[in-house]
Amino acid sequence: MIGGGQGAFIGAVHRIAARIDNEYDLVCGAFSSDAEKSKASGLALGLHESRVYSSYQELIEKESQLPQQERVQVISIVTPNHVHFEPTKLALQNGFHVVLDKPMTFSLAEAKELQTIQQASGKRFCLTHTYTGYPMVKEARQIVQSGKLGKIRKVYVEYPQGWLSTFLEGSDNKQASWRTDPTKSGAAGAMGDIGTHAFNLAEYVSALQVTQLCADINIVVEGRQLDDDGAVLLKFNNGASGVLIATQVAAGEENNVKVRVYGEHGGLEWQQSDANTLQVKWLDKPMEIWRTGGGYTSSYATHNTRTPAGHPEGYLEAFANLYRNFALAVKADIAGEQPKAECLDYPGMEEGVRGMAFIENVIASGRSEQKWTTFNI
Amino acid sequence: MIGGGQGAFIGAVHRIAARIDNEYDLVCGAFSSDAEKSKASGLALGLHESRVYSSYQELIEKESQLPQQERVQVISIVTPNHVHFEPTKLALQNGFHVVLDKPMTFSLAEAKELQTIQQASGKRFCLTHTYTGYPMVKEARQIVQSGKLGKIRKVYVEYPQGWLSTFLEGSDNKQASWRTDPTKSGAAGAMGDIGTHAFNLAEYVSALQVTQLCADINIVVEGRQLDDDGAVLLKFNNGASGVLIATQVAAGEENNVKVRVYGEHGGLEWQQSDANTLQVKWLDKPMEIWRTGGGYTSSYATHNTRTPAGHPEGYLEAFANLYRNFALAVKADIAGEQPKAECLDYPGMEEGVRGMAFIENVIASGRSEQKWTTFNI
Amino acid sequence: MIGGGQGAFIGAVHRIAARIDNEYDLVCGAFSSDAEKSKASGLALGLHESRVYSSYQELIEKESQLPQQERVQVISIVTPNHVHFEPTKLALQNGFHVVLDKPMTFSLAEAKELQTIQQASGKRFCLTHTYTGYPMVKEARQIVQSGKLGKIRKVYVEYPQGWLSTFLEGSDNKQASWRTDPTKSGAAGAMGDIGTHAFNLAEYVSALQVTQLCADINIVVEGRQLDDDGAVLLKFNNGASGVLIATQVAAGEENNVKVRVYGEHGGLEWQQSDANTLQVKWLDKPMEIWRTGGGYTSSYATHNTRTPAGHPEGYLEAFANLYRNFALAVKADIAGEQPKAECLDYPGMEEGVRGMAFIENVIASGRSEQKWTTFNI
Amino acid sequence: MIGGGQGAFIGAVHRIAARIDNEYDLVCGAFSSDAEKSKASGLALGLHESRVYSSYQELIEKESQLPQQERVQVISIVTPNHVHFEPTKLALQNGFHVVLDKPMTFSLAEAKELQTIQQASGKRFCLTHTYTGYPMVKEARQIVQSGKLGKIRKVYVEYPQGWLSTFLEGSDNKQASWRTDPTKSGAAGAMGDIGTHAFNLAEYVSALQVTQLCADINIVVEGRQLDDDGAVLLKFNNGASGVLIATQVAAGEENNVKVRVYGEHGGLEWQQSDANTLQVKWLDKPMEIWRTGGGYTSSYATHNTRTPAGHPEGYLEAFANLYRNFALAVKADIAGEQPKAECLDYPGMEEGVRGMAFIENVIASGRSEQKWTTFNI
Repeated sequence: MIGGGQGAFIGAVHRIAARIDNEYDLVCGAFSSDAEKSKASGLALGLHESRVYSSYQELIEKESQLPQQERVQVISIVTPNHVHFEPTKLALQNGFHVVLDKPMTFSLAEAKELQTIQQASGKRFCLTHTYTGYPMVKEARQIVQSGKLGKIRKVYVEYPQGWLSTFLEGSDNKQASWRTDPTKSGAAGAMGDIGTHAFNLAEYVSALQVTQLCADINIVVEGRQLDDDGAVLLKFNNGASGVLIATQVAAGEENNVKVRVYGEHGGLEWQQSDANTLQVKWLDKPMEIWRTGGGYTSSYATHNTRTPAGHPEGYLEAFANLYRNFALAVKADIAGEQPKAECLDYPGMEEGVRGMAFIENVIASGRSEQKWTTFNI
Repeated sequence: MIGGGQGAFIGAVHRIAARIDNEYDLVCGAFSSDAEKSKASGLALGLHESRVYSSYQELIEKESQLPQQERVQVISIVTPNHVHFEPTKLALQNGFHVVLDKPMTFSLAEAKELQTIQQASGKRFCLTHTYTGYPMVKEARQIVQSGKLGKIRKVYVEYPQGWLSTFLEGSDNKQASWRTDPTKSGAAGAMGDIGTHAFNLAEYVSALQVTQLCADINIVVEGRQLDDDGAVLLKFNNGASGVLIATQVAAGEENNVKVRVYGEHGGLEWQQSDANTLQVKWLDKPMEIWRTGGGYTSSYATHNTRTPAGHPEGYLEAFANLYRNFALAVKADIAGEQPKAECLDYPGMEEGVRGMAFIENVIASGRSEQKWTTFNI
Repeated sequence: MIGGGQGAFIGAVHRIAARIDNEYDLVCGAFSSDAEKSKASGLALGLHESRVYSSYQELIEKESQLPQQERVQVISIVTPNHVHFEPTKLALQNGFHVVLDKPMTFSLAEAKELQTIQQASGKRFCLTHTYTGYPMVKEARQIVQSGKLGKIRKVYVEYPQGWLSTFLEGSDNKQASWRTDPTKSGAAGAMGDIGTHAFNLAEYVSALQVTQLCADINIVVEGRQLDDDGAVLLKFNNGASGVLIATQVAAGEENNVKVRVYGEHGGLEWQQSDANTLQVKWLDKPMEIWRTGGGYTSSYATHNTRTPAGHPEGYLEAFANLYRNFALAVKADIAGEQPKAECLDYPGMEEGVRGMAFIENVIASGRSEQKWTTFNI
Repeated sequence: MIGGGQGAFIGAVHRIAARIDNEYDLVCGAFSSDAEKSKASGLALGLHESRVYSSYQELIEKESQLPQQERVQVISIVTPNHVHFEPTKLALQNGFHVVLDKPMTFSLAEAKELQTIQQASGKRFCLTHTYTGYPMVKEARQIVQSGKLGKIRKVYVEYPQGWLSTFLEGSDNKQASWRTDPTKSGAAGAMGDIGTHAFNLAEYVSALQVTQLCADINIVVEGRQLDDDGAVLLKFNNGASGVLIATQVAAGEENNVKVRVYGEHGGLEWQQSDANTLQVKWLDKPMEIWRTGGGYTSSYATHNTRTPAGHPEGYLEAFANLYRNFALAVKADIAGEQPKAECLDYPGMEEGVRGMAFIENVIASGRSEQKWTTFNI
């Protein structure tokens, strides 16, 4: 693991997610750019001193020199956005598979370069768009792709948070500080942090791609340097339209990301606050409540479910599904087998590049006086 | 009553709403432009033949000639949009109070003219934006106005319907036919029919006014003549921003109009599907569930509540609240008293003019290549 | 109307319910046993002085003497329980149809006598068990009777309230006073007031009859004279079992009466707090959400629905359904026609007698040391 | 680990729960009474062959002989009920801490004996009543104990399942087979499997103890040998009363265990289907929605929470909380420190003995013709 030292948030989440299905052992780490802090973090995690490194460069160099059987296979990179590109590039080029936290890079240009590097490397890459790991999100996509809803016409996605309603970066809140800092976060604040999740979720569930957008991007809290709020009108490649809302100043909201898709014959609604439920709506018959663990779900849902219906699986299990599927794909590769389609259903480079394109296009649109901005990559 | 003959929908709703609180007797009507149909409708409603008229002109003329004590006091006009202006004008000018179904007129120009006429007439006017009649919508506005949420920053409103997901106007569905016909409905379809409700609800609850908008307006169902779908980015007069969604092609949706408002310290959420609940959210304490009939609500909510908490009041009671408050205001006038503030809290000319301005501005924005359109009246 | 003078609660509800569908005019009343108060109430309701009476005896006597065309047809009796039997008896024997508030009488003996009187009178009788007036409750019964759920095995019904959590009868709360007074309320408090509703709802939806019960009946609030809490184990005539909960000391609860029924293949759940929704559950497919106004509901639901799906109908409309169906049945009688089955689906004498038997059996069981008490009538 | 071989359900859950917080390594196991199967299971789990044993006796014997530093510290026992007592006894007597699946033993006599053994051993013991591991269940108990609700008056708990609606034990369903087999499950079916969970949850949240009960215990599905359904009236040691429902024939229900507690001033409601929400109700102010991760929760909730509010934690995390707290307590012991109160808040012997007493008393009551059965231990 690179990043995720003491005091970090998402690193611990990655570690739990990797542990849940017993497909990974944490064997080494460069947990901080501060060597002392890295060491302290690694020891606290039970690692042997020899495999706690002072920098990601050292980690990759030293691990590369270990015998094949001993060295780390998959490197998780959980640093702030400005330290995504370099370690990922280095890891891929040195023969390691990579799991990377989103958004993929600091800029779209980096993202595209990384895609080229990864393709050349032949190594696997997973970007942790967690919400697509939920069984009922997978089921939603399966239903859309089955054609039962007819042609998709509308896609609504929203991600309201309230935690940045005050000038939190003025305090010592580490999360708030780097996420609102353009030198660490990149071109966008809210749009990068949660807008990319919403964007990814919308494209994943609808199985469509955004082609045009029109954005209202705002800095609501005085003194903030990056957007903390936005709303975006969307056009999709099949003619459908939609709306994306992402805000961090909806005081009182937690992380209730929600997506709705409507086709000619019916619609779907999923939200994280009731994550094991998928509402399936029909023009002329009762709405159906599909549930994680229901005997009627597709192989994509059942493959990503651990407990019987009614024992809720949550965010950590959704996250674990990404890790588990990535591991199963890597293991199939090693065994010389074709990974199951269900295992390959994790977000990767394509999603990462589109996410970075979303950030740059949405910020450009926010500054434009023209209504529609073409979704350029 | 003018309009609302056999086969109509909203006329019957108006009659129930007027009856619920025993403040009105139906005494006369011109229920259809077809004299036979008007008579049949009137007799079926138990009216005396002599007061069932062949046209609204006749109704107003004949009723004007009746002695003060006998003649109708309040005229409800429930015709399609293109027959709003003339009968309302005539009624006001002949000394009758008017309750009119929304949207107010066929065009903004008519609306402004009607406002002038009404002011000159000294008669009362109510526009039936039903959703503002719900006790918990009134409570929401009171909470916003109390300042407890701080400055309002975000306003989200949505009105998803699915009933026009197919080309229903191709069948003999009377509602679908006139609502999608530009010669009867006006410049807008969905934006006039439900967009105006959403717009009114947003301004009512937030106690703000829209100053700019950016609209994506669509005709989704092939062959349709008016918009059946739209999404609008909004700017408000205090600097807040928001989103309005109104669609009639969200297959499987009923009439779940919903509004959310967020300020510096907390937010509010109300939706018609759970109409007696108001979610009050806070940055740093548990969300509160305010309920119709709860002993802690403001006078605006309690004044508009009939049953103890937990016995749900619904759409007809919300509608009845408009009628009741209008009657109480008229009665106070007659008694020479100042109506209570709670009674005056019904939508009127101002809301009607703004609603028509919304229609014209939103359609103009939909056609514009420029992002922001100033909200002109 | 007999009872329901100023300060009363349920009388006003009855009047709204009767008005909603325009099938009734309020023409006379004896609103209080206090002649002054009756007159004041009647005048406030817009009645002519000549038809406001000082007592129910006077009402029935005087109205009987009016010409057939002028006199009242249906008498609503909304007095406390101890004044149910005599006026109902007198009304029926003098040729009036009667709508009576529940529970039917003061004792089971009275109830049985009233049933004999009614059968002899040939007049119609409705007991206002409001909850069976909800469209989705009617739909629930239809689904059970269709056999789709298979043989019914479990019936759970509950009616939790919190309003009597304190010694409210020690204040000047009129409702609390008579409902906790054994000389006015009868043998039971909570069991009579809301237990009978729960019991009726359970038998109505399940289409079964209770044959045995085992009750835990409590007076929780110190100083109270009648039960304010109870729970009852139930056995039904097809071998099913169940539980009934009724309490008035569940602090914080409103009136969320709820019923669940399970058969071999699936189950049903309905609750007043979401009254337009019926959950239909299946062993091996997704739960369905049936909604008032959904195009797929039975004639029993559609007959009792006024507004399109998504515009919630509530308690007053459920109450109005009883009144409307009663009126339609009386009108059919007058027209010499057989009332439609949907119109005859209102609670009557049978339900009233069983409700009183429930009260007496449940109180007896509460006092018994034996587990099971046979449901005696 | 003892038990939990291939094909078992709860063993895998225990392993995930133990992994989540990185406090345990799986080092040895006797996964089946079939030596071959045990070996296969152990190897699949990545254990070294030398520490996969053919029987629990062998596991305990061999591990005891390992040096202190190498041998297993905590043994998880996840066998069917009839194989709980012996391995637990042996483990405790040989100096191992034990985590045991519920219900504790085959009989109350065994349970009491085990309690004596454990007390003599000085080893820690945890019984996995998972639901008390949820943060909001812990919060509920804290609120009750704070006295804010006043004296507790009512406790309702229910655990409806539908999975045994058919004669599933007639198929090759391993779970159904042993759970309905009196030689493996013990005196009770549903009452042991889920009734004990409901009982434990009721006592945990209310901080009360049952003193009397009156049960209706049924075998609903023909041919079944143990109860699959029951309802129980409860009396508590402070005078409160309540109801417990546990059924496995509520067709269409998943595992929606739910508990409600009411005191003089307000009440609480928690249910697994919305596990991160705690409804806190008040007599005279709005209901509050307390949420996992909310900044306002007690140390008992925050100690048991991993992710920010709105990222749902579920069943596996609740289970993990038991394992984590047990580990922290053991570690504190080893370090010679007093474990934090929050860590000691896991179910143990006392809960196990009371659970077995519940089973025996509830079955006795089900057979009794007397209403109340004293809760004997």
